[in-house]
Amino acid sequence: MLRIIGIDPGLATTGWSVVEFDDDSKPHVIDYGCITTKKGLTVSERLCEIYQDVLELVKKYKPEYAGMETLLFYNNQKTAISVGEARGVVLLALEQSNLPLSEMTPLQVKSTVTGYGKANKKQVQEAVKMLCSMDELPKPDDAADAIAIAITTEVLVRRNIE
Amino acid sequence: MLRIIGIDPGLATTGWSVVEFDDDSKPHVIDYGCITTKKGLTVSERLCEIYQDVLELVKKYKPEYAGMETLLFYNNQKTAISVGEARGVVLLALEQSNLPLSEMTPLQVKSTVTGYGKANKKQVQEAVKMLCSMDELPKPDDAADAIAIAITTEVLVRRNIE
Repeated sequence: MLRIIGIDPGLATTGWSVVEFDDDSKPHVIDYGCITTKKGLTVSERLCEIYQDVLELVKKYKPEYAGMETLLFYNNQKTAISVGEARGVVLLALEQSNLPLSEMTPLQVKSTVTGYGKANKKQVQEAVKMLCSMDELPKPDDAADAIAIAITTEVLVRRNIE
Repeated sequence: MLRIIGIDPGLATTGWSVVEFDDDSKPHVIDYGCITTKKGLTVSERLCEIYQDVLELVKKYKPEYAGMETLLFYNNQKTAISVGEARGVVLLALEQSNLPLSEMTPLQVKSTVTGYGKANKKQVQEAVKMLCSMDELPKPDDAADAIAIAITTEVLVRRNIE
């Protein structure tokens, strides 16, 4: 058994998932959701919430590994800095929790769950639903992405262990 | 008397300054320097160092206000994300220390200390040396910038108080 937390950080919405994998690498979704922070708060207050919530998730679900996407390109500079800020406090919370981190590109995540590096959000949700034998589509997008990230992390971690 | 911490964040080098202003707004540099993190460390480890060092600086020097530049544009996307990550953990440390934060553009900082929004690094260092009656040029650049940021923060804070 291997328990992994997948995180898709953003200032307004940070998707997260906790997925457990049995010895055949079959994923079982333990829980998933989004940390959402209100627009009315300052950036610093929002970062503080994200940081504390990630620490609490790790404490509650005790994952053994963490996974996040590597971000190299962004449509817009302002978004890049803002996502960077959210990433920074998530990386800090994971480091302080002594969780080993795997990083992967968005292309790797899409390829792993759908077999196609340019899959759209709906295709990722469908693939996650099928792979995890879920009764309904995981929502919202950010949470579905976080499950896909956990699934990709497992592949990377297994590859390292074996 | 008003004591301000100015911070210029970056993953490799985070410039900082602690400046005290008397009732005539004359700046007295209490201390300044750089938090540098080694390339051999993981990004998460580097962010952890920056975060802890900022917490320690605040604890040691007990500033009443903090100042940082707002970043809107960057030459390169990868740098924007990396600076965003460093900014994120600095903002978190300041928020957890209950320090009120002023943000300003690089143009505001240059205008305030040199009177010219497009001043180069050398001109900023010269202006800071003169304004603070320092015996030598403050070095490196990032530390000089942090002093210039503290000086600009004081102007913004005074304006708000009066």
